[in-house]
Amino acid sequence: MPQTFSTLRINPDRMLDAFNQLALIGTTGDGGVNRTTFSEAHLAARKWFREHIEASGLEFHTDGAGNHSARLTFEPANLPTLILGSHLDSVPKGGRFDGALGVMAALEVLKTVRENGIKLKVQLEAMDFTDEEGTHLSLFGSSAISGHLNPDDLKKPYSGRENFSAGLARAGLTEESLFTAKRKKESVAGYLELHIEQGKRLEKRGLNVGIVSAIVGYGSYRMAYIGQADHAGSAAMEDRLDAGQGVAAFILEARQTVMRDFQNCVANVGKIEFSPGASNIVPARADFLLEFRSPDEKQLNQLDAALMKLAREKAEQFGLQVTAEPLGKHTPNLMSAEIQDAFKAACDELGLSSVVLPSGAIHDAQSLVDICPVGMIFVPSVNGTSHSPFEYTEWQDCVNGANVLLQAALRLGL
Amino acid sequence: MPQTFSTLRINPDRMLDAFNQLALIGTTGDGGVNRTTFSEAHLAARKWFREHIEASGLEFHTDGAGNHSARLTFEPANLPTLILGSHLDSVPKGGRFDGALGVMAALEVLKTVRENGIKLKVQLEAMDFTDEEGTHLSLFGSSAISGHLNPDDLKKPYSGRENFSAGLARAGLTEESLFTAKRKKESVAGYLELHIEQGKRLEKRGLNVGIVSAIVGYGSYRMAYIGQADHAGSAAMEDRLDAGQGVAAFILEARQTVMRDFQNCVANVGKIEFSPGASNIVPARADFLLEFRSPDEKQLNQLDAALMKLAREKAEQFGLQVTAEPLGKHTPNLMSAEIQDAFKAACDELGLSSVVLPSGAIHDAQSLVDICPVGMIFVPSVNGTSHSPFEYTEWQDCVNGANVLLQAALRLGL
Repeated sequence: MPQTFSTLRINPDRMLDAFNQLALIGTTGDGGVNRTTFSEAHLAARKWFREHIEASGLEFHTDGAGNHSARLTFEPANLPTLILGSHLDSVPKGGRFDGALGVMAALEVLKTVRENGIKLKVQLEAMDFTDEEGTHLSLFGSSAISGHLNPDDLKKPYSGRENFSAGLARAGLTEESLFTAKRKKESVAGYLELHIEQGKRLEKRGLNVGIVSAIVGYGSYRMAYIGQADHAGSAAMEDRLDAGQGVAAFILEARQTVMRDFQNCVANVGKIEFSPGASNIVPARADFLLEFRSPDEKQLNQLDAALMKLAREKAEQFGLQVTAEPLGKHTPNLMSAEIQDAFKAACDELGLSSVVLPSGAIHDAQSLVDICPVGMIFVPSVNGTSHSPFEYTEWQDCVNGANVLLQAALRLGL
Repeated sequence: MPQTFSTLRINPDRMLDAFNQLALIGTTGDGGVNRTTFSEAHLAARKWFREHIEASGLEFHTDGAGNHSARLTFEPANLPTLILGSHLDSVPKGGRFDGALGVMAALEVLKTVRENGIKLKVQLEAMDFTDEEGTHLSLFGSSAISGHLNPDDLKKPYSGRENFSAGLARAGLTEESLFTAKRKKESVAGYLELHIEQGKRLEKRGLNVGIVSAIVGYGSYRMAYIGQADHAGSAAMEDRLDAGQGVAAFILEARQTVMRDFQNCVANVGKIEFSPGASNIVPARADFLLEFRSPDEKQLNQLDAALMKLAREKAEQFGLQVTAEPLGKHTPNLMSAEIQDAFKAACDELGLSSVVLPSGAIHDAQSLVDICPVGMIFVPSVNGTSHSPFEYTEWQDCVNGANVLLQAALRLGL
């Protein structure tokens, strides 16, 4: 690569200005953002993104799954596209870096290439994928692009059918339009994503950049323990069929099982509801969502089986029924060796320390592995905190990540 | 008591007809009712009750706390009132017997006395107390009558301030009007209540009637474990401050503590919510309601202390904060010996087997102990089930209870 290109850097102040504008949309007031997919704040962020793209002299594009992007195109028109991106949606009360940093860095790379008049052998596209966080369906924008979206997926969104349909309508989308977002394999040259680590590995080791080797696989279930409602004063403790006891034992022992037998894995119960739901009624039913992850496919299946076995054991122990409806399962996904090499070369060129590691979190990157080479980098998260308003990454680390993204894109696209 | 009165019986078919009409209002479709206080169904049930009273030739009365009643009055007008009653509100998805049986039986007693032209030395009143179940404030109608209602209670209703205010408005009440419902001690001769047992003691022993010796005291708290939100994929299990672990351990061990050290007591966690509340976020916060009961005041205080100690221990174990806001505490209440004797004599006269036992459930009866002698009887619940659509009492047991109520009222009022 010519020396003139290897010294190219993104404009940190311009990127910070855009990043800070975006962080105010749906702000929680304490550093975080509330931008669940198709919420008012999420749609406002996308409107801002579109206007910002158009004001930057880049081409705005959107598709039938609501993915929003900036394009920087070169002749001939049939050059394959190198996509850079992430997502502008957040979890409820999430942080301002998760997803947003990757989109803003991708956009900054396009601005930098454009203002330097660099001609590439690929089209560049800076993408905001729809609903990475799964307000409705995890990774559904990137799944639509890669052709992984299945009509059956639409029947059981996390948010429920009614909220999902209302959300699509607010975004001007339909269930039919989602399937038109699919891209042909030959049209995509690759996909690069910058993201905050959402863990402590880089911070603990004092490293600048993590080059992702693989993205963990995960499984999730909508589960319920079912017992019997009873008067919470007059029904004796030993006569109760208390659904709350089943789920409490499951939550405690699922953690113990993972920590004892599945040391590279995680599991979480993040949502729960008792029915009927009054202080003076023994819970007849405890509905909850279970999610678990592993970097290894075989281990993921073993963890799945162990958790389902535990769920049945706890039902038996407390005289309850248990149900478990699978919501999704993703196998672990390997990142492209070529792109990992490009990231490593970029880090070395920039004088940044790096390490190869798996990603414990799921990302849009994994949706794209079947249609193109995919690579991903992490920058450190302070205290490893994420999915929280207290999520924070030093701005210099954000700038480092954006420069690695730029340099890797140039290495792959020149 | 003259023989002519001791052979008097209520009209079982007339009571059944009224009971069945009422059970259709707010029906869950599977035998239960949804009549939370001030809901549309609850207000419809009260409208039906008013019309039914007026059609029966009894006098309808309501007060500033929304208590609804039928009155059968005698000369002179200043005779004290013997109140019979219970409540028409239900828990969410509750049963059709809880409360409703006591009100319909009370009404049937007044009809029977009226049609037999019996002259009593007390006024009779068949009462539907407001919000026994505590949609907003447990026992709030009977507390208003006895003068126990405190302006501070109104600041933290179970339903939240907004729902409480809206409910009062729907019922045509105001916070000021509630305090006008207070009755003078000299105006009340006594209070009798028939209720289903909501437990298995009568059924297990094959007995017809339970004569209540005391109503258990209870305490309740709005509690929360507070940890930190984190990404449920990338935060290692051992680094998490998962509020769900704290509440799960508390739910399990609270049950063990009660069963091991407080054998006549109960405890329940009937409502719970994780925040932020997504499958892929480690819960930062677990909000829940705790309730516990004991028939003995000293033991109630010991149980309270043991549960609070447990809550703090679990917080420490998982690195969490815990908060506990007291929602209310009622000391156990003793029933009148004179009224217990009247119930026993009535059972004997009717050839019904009976036993003296404490009530594990709270009831409006306990609100009234400071202003008049109070008594209460139970009839068997099939399987002990209550606060559930599957709650059921054989109709003959309901009739037995109503006849005991009638005979005791005659013994006390002639």
